[in-house]
Amino acid sequence: MLCALLFGGPLCVSAQTAAMAEKYPLGDYEELTDTKPHDGAEVWNALKKPVGLSWGDTDTRYKKLDVPKVENNTLWRAKAWKGERVNGQAVLWTAEALDDVTVTVSDLRGSGRVTIPASAVEASFVRYVMTDELNKGGGGGCGHRPNKADWDSSVVADVLDTVSVRDLKPCSAQPIWVNVRVPQDAAPGTYKGTLTVSGKNLKPMKLRMEIGVVNRTLPEPADWKFHLDLWQNPYSVARYHQVPLWSREHFDAMLPLMKRLAAAGQKVVTASIMHKPWAGQTEDHFDSMIGKTRKIDGSWKYDYTVFDKWVDFMLNEAGIDGQINCYTMIPWALSFDYFDQATSRVQFVNAEPGDSAYAAYWLPFLKDFSRHLRGKGWFEKTAISMDERPMKAMQEAIKLIRKADPEFKITLAGNYHDEIQADLYDLSIPYTHKFPEAVKAQREKNGQISTVYICCTEAFPNTFTFSNPAEAAWLPVHAVAGDYDGVLRWTYNSWTADPLRDSRFRTWAAGDCYIVYPGNRSSIRFERLIEGIQNAEKIRLLRGELKANGNDAGLKELDETVALFTPEGLKKSQMEPEAMLVQLQELLNTL
Amino acid sequence: MLCALLFGGPLCVSAQTAAMAEKYPLGDYEELTDTKPHDGAEVWNALKKPVGLSWGDTDTRYKKLDVPKVENNTLWRAKAWKGERVNGQAVLWTAEALDDVTVTVSDLRGSGRVTIPASAVEASFVRYVMTDELNKGGGGGCGHRPNKADWDSSVVADVLDTVSVRDLKPCSAQPIWVNVRVPQDAAPGTYKGTLTVSGKNLKPMKLRMEIGVVNRTLPEPADWKFHLDLWQNPYSVARYHQVPLWSREHFDAMLPLMKRLAAAGQKVVTASIMHKPWAGQTEDHFDSMIGKTRKIDGSWKYDYTVFDKWVDFMLNEAGIDGQINCYTMIPWALSFDYFDQATSRVQFVNAEPGDSAYAAYWLPFLKDFSRHLRGKGWFEKTAISMDERPMKAMQEAIKLIRKADPEFKITLAGNYHDEIQADLYDLSIPYTHKFPEAVKAQREKNGQISTVYICCTEAFPNTFTFSNPAEAAWLPVHAVAGDYDGVLRWTYNSWTADPLRDSRFRTWAAGDCYIVYPGNRSSIRFERLIEGIQNAEKIRLLRGELKANGNDAGLKELDETVALFTPEGLKKSQMEPEAMLVQLQELLNTL
Repeated sequence: MLCALLFGGPLCVSAQTAAMAEKYPLGDYEELTDTKPHDGAEVWNALKKPVGLSWGDTDTRYKKLDVPKVENNTLWRAKAWKGERVNGQAVLWTAEALDDVTVTVSDLRGSGRVTIPASAVEASFVRYVMTDELNKGGGGGCGHRPNKADWDSSVVADVLDTVSVRDLKPCSAQPIWVNVRVPQDAAPGTYKGTLTVSGKNLKPMKLRMEIGVVNRTLPEPADWKFHLDLWQNPYSVARYHQVPLWSREHFDAMLPLMKRLAAAGQKVVTASIMHKPWAGQTEDHFDSMIGKTRKIDGSWKYDYTVFDKWVDFMLNEAGIDGQINCYTMIPWALSFDYFDQATSRVQFVNAEPGDSAYAAYWLPFLKDFSRHLRGKGWFEKTAISMDERPMKAMQEAIKLIRKADPEFKITLAGNYHDEIQADLYDLSIPYTHKFPEAVKAQREKNGQISTVYICCTEAFPNTFTFSNPAEAAWLPVHAVAGDYDGVLRWTYNSWTADPLRDSRFRTWAAGDCYIVYPGNRSSIRFERLIEGIQNAEKIRLLRGELKANGNDAGLKELDETVALFTPEGLKKSQMEPEAMLVQLQELLNTL
Repeated sequence: MLCALLFGGPLCVSAQTAAMAEKYPLGDYEELTDTKPHDGAEVWNALKKPVGLSWGDTDTRYKKLDVPKVENNTLWRAKAWKGERVNGQAVLWTAEALDDVTVTVSDLRGSGRVTIPASAVEASFVRYVMTDELNKGGGGGCGHRPNKADWDSSVVADVLDTVSVRDLKPCSAQPIWVNVRVPQDAAPGTYKGTLTVSGKNLKPMKLRMEIGVVNRTLPEPADWKFHLDLWQNPYSVARYHQVPLWSREHFDAMLPLMKRLAAAGQKVVTASIMHKPWAGQTEDHFDSMIGKTRKIDGSWKYDYTVFDKWVDFMLNEAGIDGQINCYTMIPWALSFDYFDQATSRVQFVNAEPGDSAYAAYWLPFLKDFSRHLRGKGWFEKTAISMDERPMKAMQEAIKLIRKADPEFKITLAGNYHDEIQADLYDLSIPYTHKFPEAVKAQREKNGQISTVYICCTEAFPNTFTFSNPAEAAWLPVHAVAGDYDGVLRWTYNSWTADPLRDSRFRTWAAGDCYIVYPGNRSSIRFERLIEGIQNAEKIRLLRGELKANGNDAGLKELDETVALFTPEGLKKSQMEPEAMLVQLQELLNTL
């Protein structure tokens, strides 16, 4: 691709070439081969009917080459609040090749002339992606995975495709994910409609849908209080789409992806204020969004062009405007980039927090950054963000930030530290780690945010591509149960080299790097996460309502159910997360 | 050194620390050990007097540990034009340790009250530097020399020290270089003075000096016509002095060095307009003196701060203002740097002359550079400079330069090429390569410069640290003999890691990388080169005078002597270069 060579980076603005489309598909694509043992021809040929269609459930990743274990269930019944999105899953399976299969949905009709229009229902073919497994012998999914052959790999259903016409191979299953967005102005009551699967050589097959709309309203995602923080990686999007970084084409490619994130209730914009804030750990490393030039007279010049464009885009186009988290003053590799006017090269300061060289690099920047942010009206939203580092380093960094501007917000995605927690506007700590009760209360009173941090560490609950889909929905309720303000997942879209087909990466269990797919494709994981966030919001609203109404019994029942979503609750109840969710959702829709 | 770590480069502005002073001495220093067989104690102890002092000659590199082979010559006689600098060499030798040895010179007294003041006479201790040898089996000094042990190394006399008090070890020689700068207003006649060597345990020893000043005047170096082009390396100076690049301290460190070069008649300022124009071949690579930023909207921004400061310094402080040569559009590695606003990193365009990507990088720059140079009033002096590259590459580069501004000057240090020579304002070709007669005449008519190019290729004549010192003086006369305008030596001061002590390098025969030493120290090679340039100027002036006077016999005699300084002359005459120089100089001072 000539244009990509032009300036050493993804500078080509032309349409994807054929080679690139194959490397980075946005439209249809071939999945990797499922090499696992599966139902043979004798099983498929023994089917009474060569093609089957049934409702399944949203907790199952149906296997690609097995006859799905579903009852012939033709009715999907769900309950939802006005404004809520609900998920269902059907499965089509066939012993014969099917061509040009499409799925259509009807309007869902309520009593009288009210409807949930078909346009509010999204039916997606579920696609298969290569995954691996947890670390052997337990202990989550962290660590390096240089040799793929060392890990048990298989294809799993996760991608929600945007391609609407598919050919199915003989002896294969094709799950269909259904997402119904109940309008906020829908009249309560029962809405009924149909889902129709048809094809060139397939007579239309129908399933029924029935959504019971409860007379309670879930606000728009922007008004959700749940603090969702999935780190965005704009560099991955530029690479995958082969568009020049920060060009209009780049922003156009990001817009649906970031709007999808906004619609999940995301509150935070991820910004990088140095080269490789996480030592380039992802397939596409983060560069600095702020240019720092050291002039030959020793003075500094800062270029906020990229930072401003990115933040402005996220705030005003994508609609994510709660917070701007700027990484990082204490990366793992204490090496800080600047463009050196003397040599016309990028040079690095190697210095530790507390060193005079560290202060010489950061202090003038932080002062100028504060001035710039105040000028843009963004200062109140912006935080200087850190990852877990040695205590002394964090303390020295905080000291310096305060010196530059005492009002700077500071965030940490790390462990709980009594010594510095009061300084941290937003502190995210791992599952099972805890804030002391009094500290949590004080933080809430101060308007400080406390969240649960999910990365490779947790075997459960997590959102790897092989994770039980229910875990994604379980997690936000867990945050509510622990009185946290939300959840931080360390990445939204740090795509792997071939993210649509292979979610494995050189480090960490597969799927850890991203939860949505290229081509603005959602995933089972992401939709279930949103389900969990909606539950969190519903709990919050119901608690308020029950308190206001003095409904102590209802409040107690709700609190008891929510309390299940804790390590202790899991242990004591011996319930599966799926069952907890069923119990909770039934309660949230009937209380 | 903490400050050097501060910004990844030589940023410390404090005085040299002790460790640095040892690594990069500016004052006194220990030489490396002379490991060669040498006169033993029995030879030294057999001396009639333990300490000796005599005039020697300037063609000999006296050995450090041998009793010098000199007659006890107490009188140095030299002839000089008014304004000329003449070199002599004395040798002190001692069987005993001598402490605090110093050399002083008296005024040189002429008849009446006229003098050449002592301040016009410089007497320097000659110091020893490690050298190696030519390639085995002949063929110059090019190629890689990764293993120093593969080469016969020895210490040789070359450095002219600025330290004025020395302790001498027993059984060692100490050459003393004398340089007399005859004032331009000196009255013709004979000037006599003395050189005195004394020490703590050494009674003053005296030698006589006698300079016969001829009634002809050599103009100031700035007015010399001889085109001298030794490439300067400012990066070496910053590293050796451990000062921030382009700081006042850096310019202060360069000033005496560059003034010394100006006083040799240098005409050209060396500038780099890209990162590593010579693929970083020297110990200190060249960075780009011009910042090129590609903004996210695709437009370019150029920063001339460093280029302007360097050129202004060379033109107005150092006094080298003939030409500004800008390297290079066609480096060996076709990789062109720019600062990418999108990533805050330096990126590289990899493109060949003729590629659209090459034009996309160079054309906007050349246009802007032309605009900038014209604004500064430097356009007429400035050339876009190239090294030898494939013909097609050179032609495409020339085409692009012409497209940007048809009036741009272009230079080449390479071979003679009929196809492009007319485009080259300044063309330097190697020893024994030739311009066709008609081409040379046309070039002279056009005001185009043609010079002899000296680098590692030539076994003779050259200026390696082991070269016969006479070769440095022979070379400029050779240029005159071939009707060239001057000499290009590819480097003035690309210092090695430890240039004062070790002139060997990972590539090329020792001394190729530099001809002057840190601490503003000249060398035997450099002084002899100046001698040659002075001879070239004297030939030019005499020819004019002889022609004007219709002195055909004198002209013929001069031309015949000059013609000796060619490969053919060497062969035919069977004369040594030293003898040729004696014959020439006698003629130049008596004609």
